[in-house]
Amino acid sequence: MSRPKAVVLLSGGMDSATTAAIALRHGFDVHALTFRYGQRHHVELEAALHVAAQLSLGRHVVLEIDLRAFGGSALTADIPVPKDTPIDEIGQRIPDTYVPGRNAIFLSFALGWAEVLGASDIFLGVNALDYSGYPDCRPEFIQAFQAMADLATRAGVEQGRRLTVHTPLIALSKREIIEQGLALGVDYGLTLTCYDPSTEGAACGRCEACILRLKGFREIGMEDPARYQTVEGKA
Amino acid sequence: MSRPKAVVLLSGGMDSATTAAIALRHGFDVHALTFRYGQRHHVELEAALHVAAQLSLGRHVVLEIDLRAFGGSALTADIPVPKDTPIDEIGQRIPDTYVPGRNAIFLSFALGWAEVLGASDIFLGVNALDYSGYPDCRPEFIQAFQAMADLATRAGVEQGRRLTVHTPLIALSKREIIEQGLALGVDYGLTLTCYDPSTEGAACGRCEACILRLKGFREIGMEDPARYQTVEGKA
Repeated sequence: MSRPKAVVLLSGGMDSATTAAIALRHGFDVHALTFRYGQRHHVELEAALHVAAQLSLGRHVVLEIDLRAFGGSALTADIPVPKDTPIDEIGQRIPDTYVPGRNAIFLSFALGWAEVLGASDIFLGVNALDYSGYPDCRPEFIQAFQAMADLATRAGVEQGRRLTVHTPLIALSKREIIEQGLALGVDYGLTLTCYDPSTEGAACGRCEACILRLKGFREIGMEDPARYQTVEGKA
Repeated sequence: MSRPKAVVLLSGGMDSATTAAIALRHGFDVHALTFRYGQRHHVELEAALHVAAQLSLGRHVVLEIDLRAFGGSALTADIPVPKDTPIDEIGQRIPDTYVPGRNAIFLSFALGWAEVLGASDIFLGVNALDYSGYPDCRPEFIQAFQAMADLATRAGVEQGRRLTVHTPLIALSKREIIEQGLALGVDYGLTLTCYDPSTEGAACGRCEACILRLKGFREIGMEDPARYQTVEGKA
C-alpha cells in the first residue's frame, strides 16, 4: 500500500526541517512547499533544498511570491531586523519581523496544493512557546484556519475529505524541538534560521530567531552546527 | 478628513468591477489587488487595468502567483474549460474551473496588504446565487475566513483593529449586480468575465461564466457591451 501524502511547509529553518522529519516518521509521503518572498532569497532557498535532499522528500515546489510589493516588515522592506533583544522580552511584543498575513498565505497555498495532490495532511512548524509572539503562530489561529479550510475545498464539500493542519511543534520548547530532530536524524548544520544572514548564509547570532535557537542548543549542551558570522553565535 | 482605505480584489471581471464601484460609493479610498495566476495573463490583466483606470482607483498592485505549479484546474492546467452547460445544471456540481485554495489565497494576500496599508476593509466580489457552486464563494466560507482573519494580524491583536471582509454581491442575482453597476457608472465593456477568452480578449460566450453573465444582460433587456467571439454571445 502506498503511503498517504502530506504537504510540509519548508522554510529551510530548524523548525520546518524538524517538522518534515516528524511527518516522515508518521509514515507520510512528504512533499515540500517553499516560498521565496523576502530579500534573502538565495541562501534561504539553498537551505530548504539541502534539507529536502537530506530527508529524501518527494516533490519540492518553490513558489516566488513578491511580498515586497506590500512591504511592512523587516523581512520584506527596508526596515532593520531587531538585534540583541533581551531573551525575557522576546514574545512580549510583536516585533518588526512580523510579516502581515504570512501564515494565512502560506497555509492557503498548502491547502490548494494538498487538494490537487490528493493529500489530506499539511504540516507546519509553528511554535508558540520559544517564539516572537507572532499572532499567526498561536494555536487559536491554527484552529480558525482549520475551520476555514474545512469549508474551502471541493475535497471537503463533495468528497468528505477533510484536510488537516498539523503543528507538531506548537507546544514544544526549542530544546525539545532540537532533541526530537536529532533523534530523527535532522542535520541542523544544513538549516538556516536567521532573519539577517550574510550573503554566504552565515547566521547573525543576534536576531530573535538566532537567540532562541542558540538558547535551545545551549540547554542541551551542544554546539549549534550552523555557521555564524561571529563567535557570539557559538555555545 | 481623509477617506478610510479599502482593498478590493479586482480580477477584471464584471463582479469585481461592480464591487469596486460599491466600495467607492461607500466612501472608501479604494486600492486594487489583482493576481496573475493562470494561463490567460495578458487579456485578464488588461481588463483589470482598464477597470481600475475608469474607476480612478488608488494604488493597483498586480501580483504574479504561479498556481500552474500546482495545476488541478481548467484555469491552471491543460484541462478543458466546460462549455454549453445547461443553465439549470450550473452550480449543481463543482466544475473543473474550480481552483483549489483560490479565495483563501487571494483573501490572505488582501489581509496582509490591508494591514500594511492601514486599511480595515476588504471587498470581494463573490456571488453565491448565479454561480458555479465553488465552495469558497459561499457565505459560510467567508464567515470562517473572517474568524481566522480576526486572529491573524498584529492590527487585530495589538491595536484592536479588526479587518472586515465585505461581500456586497454574495446574495444578488447577475441581473441585480448589473443594475447596481450601471447605476454606479461601471463600464461593462471594459470587463472580461470569460474563462476561455481569445488572445485578443473576446469572450467565448459558452463557458459557465459567460452563460451566467449573458443571462443577466438578457434579463434586463440590454446587449452586453463586451466583445464575444461568436454571435451567440449577443442578447
